[in-house]
Amino acid sequence: MTQRSSTRIPSTPPTLNAGPVRLGQLDGYIGYHLRLAQNASFRAFQRKSGRADLKPGWFAVLSLIGDNPGITPAAVSRAAGRDKSTLTPILRDLEKHLYVTSEPRAGDRRSYGLSLTDLGRERLAELAAHAAEHDRTLDAIAGERKAELIALLRRITEELG
Amino acid sequence: MTQRSSTRIPSTPPTLNAGPVRLGQLDGYIGYHLRLAQNASFRAFQRKSGRADLKPGWFAVLSLIGDNPGITPAAVSRAAGRDKSTLTPILRDLEKHLYVTSEPRAGDRRSYGLSLTDLGRERLAELAAHAAEHDRTLDAIAGERKAELIALLRRITEELG
Repeated sequence: MTQRSSTRIPSTPPTLNAGPVRLGQLDGYIGYHLRLAQNASFRAFQRKSGRADLKPGWFAVLSLIGDNPGITPAAVSRAAGRDKSTLTPILRDLEKHLYVTSEPRAGDRRSYGLSLTDLGRERLAELAAHAAEHDRTLDAIAGERKAELIALLRRITEELG
Repeated sequence: MTQRSSTRIPSTPPTLNAGPVRLGQLDGYIGYHLRLAQNASFRAFQRKSGRADLKPGWFAVLSLIGDNPGITPAAVSRAAGRDKSTLTPILRDLEKHLYVTSEPRAGDRRSYGLSLTDLGRERLAELAAHAAEHDRTLDAIAGERKAELIALLRRITEELG
């Protein structure tokens, strides 16, 4: 078991079998189950990474910047499915940790581009290994329905985004 | 169109068709698509509610407290799939808005139970109407595969939670 901060992550894992709690209308809602699955998936990834300070979005944002040096925050926002209000604090955290730098883009002083530092590349490589392992767990759960699951999630993203 | 805060929600909706951005490994990851779908779904619900101040988790938490008067924060945490670090600020917000009250539980002074105020019940009824409408949109996207989608999301929640 990797290290966990007991003050941040309770020992009682969230579960749908919450005893006598009435879920009411929530139980039939796709949106409710999307959130539970997303939360459970992130927490499992956080535990696997061995870092209690891992925040939602760090991996995807580091990965997008790593694959697209000089990318603008607006392009990260679109590709990471995050609006400015949730992307800005992530970028601030990543810059504070010295994983990411931002510099004015050539030919356009009003916009700036994001790149990884050497430390950011190291951190990304480490997280990418945990993410690949985490994804194998999710693949095993979805089994042969993985492609269908991703197709449905894509449709939700495209039609509601 | 309901009211939107243009400072919080950009006019360029996140999309997977982000032009020349390379998604790299992310594109094959269930976890990445879960997050995009979850974000798109929440934002659509937020727009439908007409309230830019609607925060993730408010509806589920109000609904659980409404269906289970006197429920403990620990039970809400399990049923809402949220750990203490993300549930605590939601409860603080809901109490600040006077939607929720907390009182010591009979026979156990160390734990307390949560209930809705009259204002909280009004707010829940209003959000529930928007949630039902939002869920019909998600149902239409999932079509006949809704039951399968929920079953897969439940498995992810149960096996990773």
